[in-house]
Amino acid sequence: MSRILGIDPGLHITGWGVVDYDGFYLKHVDHGTIISSSSEVIGSRLSGIFKGLADIIEEYSPNEISIEDVFVNKNPFSSLKLGMARGAAICCAGVLGLKISEYTPNRIKKTVVGSGHATKDQVSTMVQKLLNCGTVKLDAADALAVAICHAHHDAFYAVVK
Amino acid sequence: MSRILGIDPGLHITGWGVVDYDGFYLKHVDHGTIISSSSEVIGSRLSGIFKGLADIIEEYSPNEISIEDVFVNKNPFSSLKLGMARGAAICCAGVLGLKISEYTPNRIKKTVVGSGHATKDQVSTMVQKLLNCGTVKLDAADALAVAICHAHHDAFYAVVK
Repeated sequence: MSRILGIDPGLHITGWGVVDYDGFYLKHVDHGTIISSSSEVIGSRLSGIFKGLADIIEEYSPNEISIEDVFVNKNPFSSLKLGMARGAAICCAGVLGLKISEYTPNRIKKTVVGSGHATKDQVSTMVQKLLNCGTVKLDAADALAVAICHAHHDAFYAVVK
Repeated sequence: MSRILGIDPGLHITGWGVVDYDGFYLKHVDHGTIISSSSEVIGSRLSGIFKGLADIIEEYSPNEISIEDVFVNKNPFSSLKLGMARGAAICCAGVLGLKISEYTPNRIKKTVVGSGHATKDQVSTMVQKLLNCGTVKLDAADALAVAICHAHHDAFYAVVK
């Protein structure tokens, strides 16, 4: 049995989702979002992401972290903001000594929905069906999706090894 | 007397410099660089920046942090990398509860050299003259420059208050 924490980092909303898997079955554990307001100073926003994830890691003790490879926006300012949120999230996992796997949005959609061009709503619907966990908001659904993607990836490598 | 830690964040090299100032005089305390290799995984690189700065903060007990506002590269991938390093650095200061001030590269150069278009070598030369601290490599000089910029800024506001 392995426990995966999936993270979808963002400066405003960071989605997170925890799933257990044993190579065949996936089980939903919990999910949620860490929200920071643009009225806060940047140090407070980023340390909020760091501390929020550290609390989740302490509570659920995941074995591994799976994170969405940030979509690189054409706007360098947006990329910089996303980079900072991603930096805070990866930093937290790194400081706590957890292994981090990264997956592109296309790969996650392909794994969860079957199409690399699936919409956010399609991803959310499939996540809810796969985990049988009721309604999940989009950001948390993306985080659960990246956790599912990592579980499938690990299961595949366990078979071909 | 106030102690400022200046930071010039970068994924490969993060420069840092500590100065003391009492409203009139600046005194060099120490400076250096935190280096991460591209052969390391990203979690290790970012947590290296975080832990390295946390050690420096523990050793020198600065009252404030001054950080260079990252130059936004036209290339979104470069902006993303810079953003991650910046995220790790700001996150560290935020988690440790230190106040963070940000200055654009132009403002730092204008303050230290007198011209917003000064070269890196000119900045380094002026930093060495102002702090009377011997030869300083470019990344650490940039970090000392952002600390000096913050000292001048604070001294100005202390006068006009």
